[in-house]
Amino acid sequence: MEDEVVDADSLRLFAAAALEAVGTSEEDAAIVADVLVAADLTGHESHGVARLEEMYVRPVQRGAIDAGASLVTVHERAATLVLDAQNGLGQPAAKRAMDLCIARAREAGTCMAVVRNSNHYGIAGYYPMLAAAQDMIGVCCTTAGPLVVATGGRTSLLGTNPLAFAAPAGRHQPFMLDMATSVVPIGKVEVKARRQTPLPAGWAVDAQGRTATDAAEVLARTSGDLTGGLVPLGGLEAGHKGYGLAVMVDILSGVLAGARVSLHVREAKGRGESAGVGHFVAAIDLAAFGAVDEFKAAMDAYIDDLPAAPRAPGVDRLMVAGEPEFEARQRHLRTGLPLHGGVAASLQELGRELKVPLFRLLD
Amino acid sequence: MEDEVVDADSLRLFAAAALEAVGTSEEDAAIVADVLVAADLTGHESHGVARLEEMYVRPVQRGAIDAGASLVTVHERAATLVLDAQNGLGQPAAKRAMDLCIARAREAGTCMAVVRNSNHYGIAGYYPMLAAAQDMIGVCCTTAGPLVVATGGRTSLLGTNPLAFAAPAGRHQPFMLDMATSVVPIGKVEVKARRQTPLPAGWAVDAQGRTATDAAEVLARTSGDLTGGLVPLGGLEAGHKGYGLAVMVDILSGVLAGARVSLHVREAKGRGESAGVGHFVAAIDLAAFGAVDEFKAAMDAYIDDLPAAPRAPGVDRLMVAGEPEFEARQRHLRTGLPLHGGVAASLQELGRELKVPLFRLLD
Repeated sequence: MEDEVVDADSLRLFAAAALEAVGTSEEDAAIVADVLVAADLTGHESHGVARLEEMYVRPVQRGAIDAGASLVTVHERAATLVLDAQNGLGQPAAKRAMDLCIARAREAGTCMAVVRNSNHYGIAGYYPMLAAAQDMIGVCCTTAGPLVVATGGRTSLLGTNPLAFAAPAGRHQPFMLDMATSVVPIGKVEVKARRQTPLPAGWAVDAQGRTATDAAEVLARTSGDLTGGLVPLGGLEAGHKGYGLAVMVDILSGVLAGARVSLHVREAKGRGESAGVGHFVAAIDLAAFGAVDEFKAAMDAYIDDLPAAPRAPGVDRLMVAGEPEFEARQRHLRTGLPLHGGVAASLQELGRELKVPLFRLLD
Repeated sequence: MEDEVVDADSLRLFAAAALEAVGTSEEDAAIVADVLVAADLTGHESHGVARLEEMYVRPVQRGAIDAGASLVTVHERAATLVLDAQNGLGQPAAKRAMDLCIARAREAGTCMAVVRNSNHYGIAGYYPMLAAAQDMIGVCCTTAGPLVVATGGRTSLLGTNPLAFAAPAGRHQPFMLDMATSVVPIGKVEVKARRQTPLPAGWAVDAQGRTATDAAEVLARTSGDLTGGLVPLGGLEAGHKGYGLAVMVDILSGVLAGARVSLHVREAKGRGESAGVGHFVAAIDLAAFGAVDEFKAAMDAYIDDLPAAPRAPGVDRLMVAGEPEFEARQRHLRTGLPLHGGVAASLQELGRELKVPLFRLLD
């Protein structure tokens, strides 16, 4: 099926309308829609509107996610917050947590918040960028259902547990790192499965702990019995580091949050069956560390040094984290957002079912 | 040359005496010695007393490190500190920075400190463990001289930029992650060079950006012209993640600290030629997030789940970060510390030169 090209603004309005149609408040629906479309705009379709129906609209409809829940403060200090999302949508919970951190960081210099009883929050890199827009460094991580084996193991014990970090620059776009702590996110296995090409060695292991090359089989298992799974970042040589980073993310966004660690996170299947996802967010106010302009000038000088360096043979360009996302976003805002034909068709069907105005296709 | 077995306490006293003999205060000398011997005890000889002479005693003697410098506060907020080590020793600067963070985190919930104008601080994992001993999570990172290429590059632009994180548990030892953001630290290349065995593909690249297998050549270059270097964590498949983590560490401990980023860190060679190393440390008070006992119980339950999981063929045991270090430490405290014969001999020669009492060899 061919790609459709859609207008990003109208896609955002459509996603928000669909969420409102199943009982989400206008404000929360707008946040979820913005996070989803931001993923599509930056080239991360796997976390975009393709997930609107299965991960958000249907769970809200069947009451597995409580779209009416509000975020409450459980504990607070000058620079820390413990928040409870009460099984609400992950995106508004995480965005509000970051907004609260930004406000407190202006006084205390920094603030960290954890969120318990939440749900999947979409693309991790969205939240640190909120801090970067306020002249702050932002950090964010989250628990996620088990998909990754421990080093030496053969069952999924860990989530892909993404870690995201953003820092503003002056002339340059913010440095923005948003990475799964596994060699690859599950989305890359999905792509291989669709194309029926084998997985490279080192991405995943099978039920016996041996290198797995059958993408479809890896996918079937990750939604099933938890045997086999993705390999932690570092692969065969240094996978203990990715494993360690995944546990660190579980500690910050699971244990410290009073939420579930990834092994015990389950998709919210039915009413009252909370996924129990946890998030960790932090904001660091640059102004607490000296002149903001000096920080930005030093970031510019640093970023200048990187792509200017000599390249290995066959490499056209050295990149800096966040650059591919920024460039994809600029391109998609200019020429429209390509949407997989099947995804566009199923969203249109969802729109008709929910009786909301459809998004606009571009020529 | 055969290993000698030494008593750890007497080795610590020896290292402190050597530093005092060149003008370091008693208090600072004790801190440096403790950090160095902690590395040997936990099995990380590459960061232990083997470095006493070249990285600390000689630079202090020739005035490249100012052992008499004190740590001054440049900026402060309730939860942030900017400190200037004034070209003093890295270990006392980083330890005091963490102690200050721990004190402030008891009030504000968390505190972050950056240190500028510092020097190499030894093993990164030492400092977060100070926080863990106070029922806090500790985080620490540092800039370091350039040894690592950017993804697609062929010159050393980044340090091995270690990231360290510790969180206390109850029955279990603290979780303690201390990792270079490259596939391997330079110490592993040194071991291969000594044994004259080739490097595995993916550890390092040569001056042309091709896989380098000659360990001696990689080492020669890292102390020279910066062409070639170690590969970031993730290697050929996902090295952009290790590259991103290394830049994150440079931003926190270099740019935010007002220190040099790794590319511009140089070993302190002569009087007034500061290395300009920067550190970042943070403490997070568990009590600000709920009952400390509940956190520790949740950590115990989490750590119980990991080694109990099914193992891949040929794997005896699943480990948790910090376990190998803890076990090495227990073993070395019981049976003595094995010290490479050449290292023991050169330390003895240094001791005679500085006229300090020698450490005790065990039978």
